[in-house]
Amino acid sequence: MSNPLVLRRSVVRLSSQGFETVDDAVAVERALEIRIGGQTLSVTLRTPGHDVELGLGFLAGEALVTRRRDVAEIVATAAECADEADRLDVTLAPHVTVDWTRFERHFAATAACGLCGRAHLDSLRAGLQPMPADARIDAAGLAALPARMRERQEAFAATGGLHAAAYGNAALEMEALREDVGRHNAVDKIAGWLLEQERYPVGSGVLWVSGRAGAEIVLKAARARIPVLAAVGAPSSLAIELAESAAMTLVGFLREGRMNVYSGRERLT
Amino acid sequence: MSNPLVLRRSVVRLSSQGFETVDDAVAVERALEIRIGGQTLSVTLRTPGHDVELGLGFLAGEALVTRRRDVAEIVATAAECADEADRLDVTLAPHVTVDWTRFERHFAATAACGLCGRAHLDSLRAGLQPMPADARIDAAGLAALPARMRERQEAFAATGGLHAAAYGNAALEMEALREDVGRHNAVDKIAGWLLEQERYPVGSGVLWVSGRAGAEIVLKAARARIPVLAAVGAPSSLAIELAESAAMTLVGFLREGRMNVYSGRERLT
Repeated sequence: MSNPLVLRRSVVRLSSQGFETVDDAVAVERALEIRIGGQTLSVTLRTPGHDVELGLGFLAGEALVTRRRDVAEIVATAAECADEADRLDVTLAPHVTVDWTRFERHFAATAACGLCGRAHLDSLRAGLQPMPADARIDAAGLAALPARMRERQEAFAATGGLHAAAYGNAALEMEALREDVGRHNAVDKIAGWLLEQERYPVGSGVLWVSGRAGAEIVLKAARARIPVLAAVGAPSSLAIELAESAAMTLVGFLREGRMNVYSGRERLT
Repeated sequence: MSNPLVLRRSVVRLSSQGFETVDDAVAVERALEIRIGGQTLSVTLRTPGHDVELGLGFLAGEALVTRRRDVAEIVATAAECADEADRLDVTLAPHVTVDWTRFERHFAATAACGLCGRAHLDSLRAGLQPMPADARIDAAGLAALPARMRERQEAFAATGGLHAAAYGNAALEMEALREDVGRHNAVDKIAGWLLEQERYPVGSGVLWVSGRAGAEIVLKAARARIPVLAAVGAPSSLAIELAESAAMTLVGFLREGRMNVYSGRERLT
């Protein structure tokens, strides 16, 4: 069965044996235009698949919607030619209004996903609600997670080019895993999956990410009310500050049997 | 000497020895607001340092400026409190005008840096000028690069949390290396460095990046007219397509003694 996240193509490999042409797998990256009522909200580069989840999670991450029924209709349409963006047309429910002026931004900032155009960070922090204090996660179970996740990251194994995000419940059962060339997209897909299940904001469990934990990932997890964020990679200083503000448990360098806990250690039992 | 890219803090480490509190290094991430004539253009999360280069490279990547003298003044100001963004105030030269409507975008798209708000990719491709056909790079020298780069990535070694980008000339002498929590920022800093040196667009050499090669990295390299992009990580399908359109040499999985060549193989001798 072909994997829609992966494209096969020939590539020239150079090794000590010299140049040779081999068959290789590449992560698919395509543009997706997200529109509300016909108006363009965003064009994102993503790996196709779970586009409706991506759109829902993106809207939730921007606090435009908080429940599945805030969206009346969401329709994905593949582009007809390679140079066009795919499209996701969203119709919000009548009770939801969009303050477009809130989203008038200029440039897209590079690492600033979710922050662009907001000159002051205090408003960000003000939007952070403390995570549930009673949520607990088994530390030994968390330490055993890396091996389980590696098995499940299929497209990554094939291409080396995809980030992954996964949601695990309070018992550390991994309920959903999503992959994307963009790590924020993978997290948005998980948030959208929670929304589809009427479980957003969820209030328990773990968000696992295959890469680093930057500030925007913490913000997305906080909005979804996932009390524990566990990253395979390093956190940034701002990610730690924001996690502390939200009373979120932030784990970095989660590897076989070891991890660093940057905030909210009391949740790990 | 303290490293401004790195913050030291205590962290709880869990290993087979149980919990212990250790001293750890974390990559610094802070917000930077870039303004032109007092008007906010972007707020980006970046690792402080080389902010003027970052700003110049960002402006060049957006095709707002092409030479150092397009910028009359550029002043960096650190924020007075932790919750405020640092600031970069740009005054363009009188001969440069900004069409702000061109940059009216709504949301910041996540992985779409440099693409947001542009619904059609054909305009992107149209902006790509073919790279110089006569630029050549020694394949054996490129294969020997990984060891040299690893030594130089100081802050990464300390924190595991920083991306790096470097510019090497046609003889593969690495002239500049920049690190940042955002991989696009690291590339913008290199572009800004070229601009500062009056060498932008440069027309020769190699852009080396420590991570993956997505579409936006290819676009930034193309605008800087760097004919070879060499990434430690995987390229995406769109990155390969755009590199082909620009007749750029795209190398991925550049590791000790081996690499994959996705386009423009004729440049490697």
